[in-house]
Amino acid sequence: MNIKHICHILGAFLFFLGLTMLLPIGCSVYFREGDFKALLLSLVITSATGALFYFFFKPREEQISLTHKEGFVIVTAGWILAAAFGSLPYLLYGALPTFVDAFFESMSGFTTTGATVITNIAGIPHGILLWRSLTQWLGGMGIIVLSIAILPILGVGGMQLYRAELPGPVKDKLKPRIAETARVLWIVYVIISTVEFILLLFGGMSVFDSLCHTFTTMATGGFSTSDSSIAHFHSAYIDAVITVFMLTAGINFSLHYSLLTGNFKTFFRNRELRFFLALALVGMILITINLRLNFFSDTIKSFRIASFQVASIITTTGFTTDNFANWPALSKIILLLLMFAGGSAGSTGGGIKCLRILLIIKHGYGELYRLVHPHAVTTVKLGKEIVSAEIMGSIWGFFILYLSVTVVATLIMSLLGLDMMTAFSSVAATIGNIGPGFGMVDPASTYAEIPYCGKWILSFCMLVGRLEIYTVIVLLIPEFWRK
Amino acid sequence: MNIKHICHILGAFLFFLGLTMLLPIGCSVYFREGDFKALLLSLVITSATGALFYFFFKPREEQISLTHKEGFVIVTAGWILAAAFGSLPYLLYGALPTFVDAFFESMSGFTTTGATVITNIAGIPHGILLWRSLTQWLGGMGIIVLSIAILPILGVGGMQLYRAELPGPVKDKLKPRIAETARVLWIVYVIISTVEFILLLFGGMSVFDSLCHTFTTMATGGFSTSDSSIAHFHSAYIDAVITVFMLTAGINFSLHYSLLTGNFKTFFRNRELRFFLALALVGMILITINLRLNFFSDTIKSFRIASFQVASIITTTGFTTDNFANWPALSKIILLLLMFAGGSAGSTGGGIKCLRILLIIKHGYGELYRLVHPHAVTTVKLGKEIVSAEIMGSIWGFFILYLSVTVVATLIMSLLGLDMMTAFSSVAATIGNIGPGFGMVDPASTYAEIPYCGKWILSFCMLVGRLEIYTVIVLLIPEFWRK
Repeated sequence: MNIKHICHILGAFLFFLGLTMLLPIGCSVYFREGDFKALLLSLVITSATGALFYFFFKPREEQISLTHKEGFVIVTAGWILAAAFGSLPYLLYGALPTFVDAFFESMSGFTTTGATVITNIAGIPHGILLWRSLTQWLGGMGIIVLSIAILPILGVGGMQLYRAELPGPVKDKLKPRIAETARVLWIVYVIISTVEFILLLFGGMSVFDSLCHTFTTMATGGFSTSDSSIAHFHSAYIDAVITVFMLTAGINFSLHYSLLTGNFKTFFRNRELRFFLALALVGMILITINLRLNFFSDTIKSFRIASFQVASIITTTGFTTDNFANWPALSKIILLLLMFAGGSAGSTGGGIKCLRILLIIKHGYGELYRLVHPHAVTTVKLGKEIVSAEIMGSIWGFFILYLSVTVVATLIMSLLGLDMMTAFSSVAATIGNIGPGFGMVDPASTYAEIPYCGKWILSFCMLVGRLEIYTVIVLLIPEFWRK
Repeated sequence: MNIKHICHILGAFLFFLGLTMLLPIGCSVYFREGDFKALLLSLVITSATGALFYFFFKPREEQISLTHKEGFVIVTAGWILAAAFGSLPYLLYGALPTFVDAFFESMSGFTTTGATVITNIAGIPHGILLWRSLTQWLGGMGIIVLSIAILPILGVGGMQLYRAELPGPVKDKLKPRIAETARVLWIVYVIISTVEFILLLFGGMSVFDSLCHTFTTMATGGFSTSDSSIAHFHSAYIDAVITVFMLTAGINFSLHYSLLTGNFKTFFRNRELRFFLALALVGMILITINLRLNFFSDTIKSFRIASFQVASIITTTGFTTDNFANWPALSKIILLLLMFAGGSAGSTGGGIKCLRILLIIKHGYGELYRLVHPHAVTTVKLGKEIVSAEIMGSIWGFFILYLSVTVVATLIMSLLGLDMMTAFSSVAATIGNIGPGFGMVDPASTYAEIPYCGKWILSFCMLVGRLEIYTVIVLLIPEFWRK
């Protein structure tokens, strides 16, 4: 493990992270609400620390290649550092009382979770709020590149599949380097963000609100500039725009690249995309009917609210236009299931990911088939491509680790005195990077009331979920640290 | 598919099933409570139908071998017929008002679940109650032979492992035929049952209660002769005896055979046994501490009640000495998790089974290991034996089918208007063959209030869970019925 080299890279990362605070600083200059100092100081501390690390830990020239292990450490440490330094604006301004609260909020940002401990958003200055939204957008940028360009190389959780499955930046090997892949994906991310920003402006949202909500929609983050989330805007147009863009952000960004480069066939033939949209559609229809029959008296309203919520939950965004914790049991169970499914791999969505769910279901059916034809060789296929046993093993491993972390964290949360539903759903909503859950953390509440120790546990869940479980958990096994 | 042959075999099965009613008939003669006629008529109908089928559908001599497919049909149809004819005593006596209730109770018996729709047990005559307990004991007999002698041949859900893993009747091939294996296992079953019966008598239980509770303990069934289950007896001795015998019944009966034939090493070295006991022990300790700190003021009482309940839930028996639905969240979550774990494979316990959970966890860890050593060949081992990829695939398939049936059934139950907790836990408690759950089906309640349609769904869950999922679900795929 070349600690020097790792610190060098992380130093550069922190330096640039600090610079991104220029945007909220500009905002605070415009609004003049007293958050300028806190933001500027945060920038200086972050970038100065980064620069110090960068120059102090210079690796020798021959050490510039990275090992697998170093890759895991850099990714995990990078996200933790981002959360730690990203909490500075909240702390220095005094928006949140303790470090654990600020860290939780910041981790919730960079992991694009959207779970918040801020109980009165109206009391927070615009600069800080813009930083809060920006952390999600930056986290989304990070996650796209991580999942499409880095994890496949590290061999994490079936992400290896991407190289074979997906055309575009990875497969055709025209742009094989991580940096180039990142550049292409970020251009796509910025283009789609710009379109949403303009569409929201058309809906009558202010520039500030449009920008914040674009940041948090595209990252499937879910932070809003109002305590009542998107319900605040009372606009069917805005609901519709955000519904569409949440779904867009829940699709693999490689596919968006295909679409933007005119490769429609690749886009529409993609199995995961079809499965993702089918799941969302079935969820929307079932919940619309359930709400119409047992909750609202208006069909259009039922559809509008159901489709928004399904898009928000399956993509793990977490925006709300109604408190779904009050809905009938069927709707709640569907939402809970969608929380586990999550978006597509290679999107900014969290959860287990549709690709894995699809392959797991195919595997289950294949085993039934084998009982009927005991001597048949059954393999799992995705389209025409056979998914290797190794990749399936990796996906099963992911699945069981995801469930295991959920179970252990739920036990610890219940040990802190939380009721069953709060303990379970707070974990499900953070490891899945969703945000709101049920019980004490329902859409009408925040995570402020969770005990301090619980906030640390949930921050860990957000990190583990966001980095595809393996990346973090592998650091916890003794084998990793053996020479 | 040789329908004639199948009917012939099922006819013989029904004939003997009818004869088992002689025991409750003897009981009703002794107690003279007016259930004699109903029981006798049930015997006649069952055995006569059986005899008719047996003689009417005689296969030709050359057709006496069975195919895989016929095996699945016989097992599933056998259990459904047992439940249907087993419901006659309840119906003919009038103990339960409708066929669905009687079928539910009978299915709950033969699947050793223990979920009941009888709200006032004191009003039911002894003969009928003995039949109710006997159905569980017979179901237990069925399941031991099914899981150790039949499913491994059919290649179901990793049960193939048994042939390699377990010594005793299967591996050494001294007694390879199903009939011989069955005879050996049943002797073991009867011996252990006899010991429990005698020990319960020593505890001051009546002969009737001792017999009934022996039947339902050994089958990990959980039917009791009192509405308040084992709490009725107010005896630490009885609690202890039943705790030990529940755990005993949750152990693979091949291992008991090893132990009885002096093969101690095989018994104590068995990995699944160790894992099962470790899980039970950890559960007991955690719940004892949780109850002592937050529920009872007495350490001994906490331990007594916690250890009884953990043994009851992990073995999927379902006896209770306290309403665990009122316990603190941590204890409830542990119990819910143990419901999914279940007993050992080859025992009378239900659930996913400890063997599968153990291998699934090992697989998860193996995948982490592979990230650290990307070029290492990682295999899952049980003791010194390598578990083949095929068996692992079969186990994963089992796991996902188990979860899928749970999810789909929960959705349907919630559609019937049940709350989330009742919908989920009624399904978990029936597919796992446990009995009591949370919400409307907690230990203080019965399944009587569940809507009719829900009772059918839950009866299906009991069947699917008991027959190791695959055996039933495979009949539902079109591929099975294609020539």
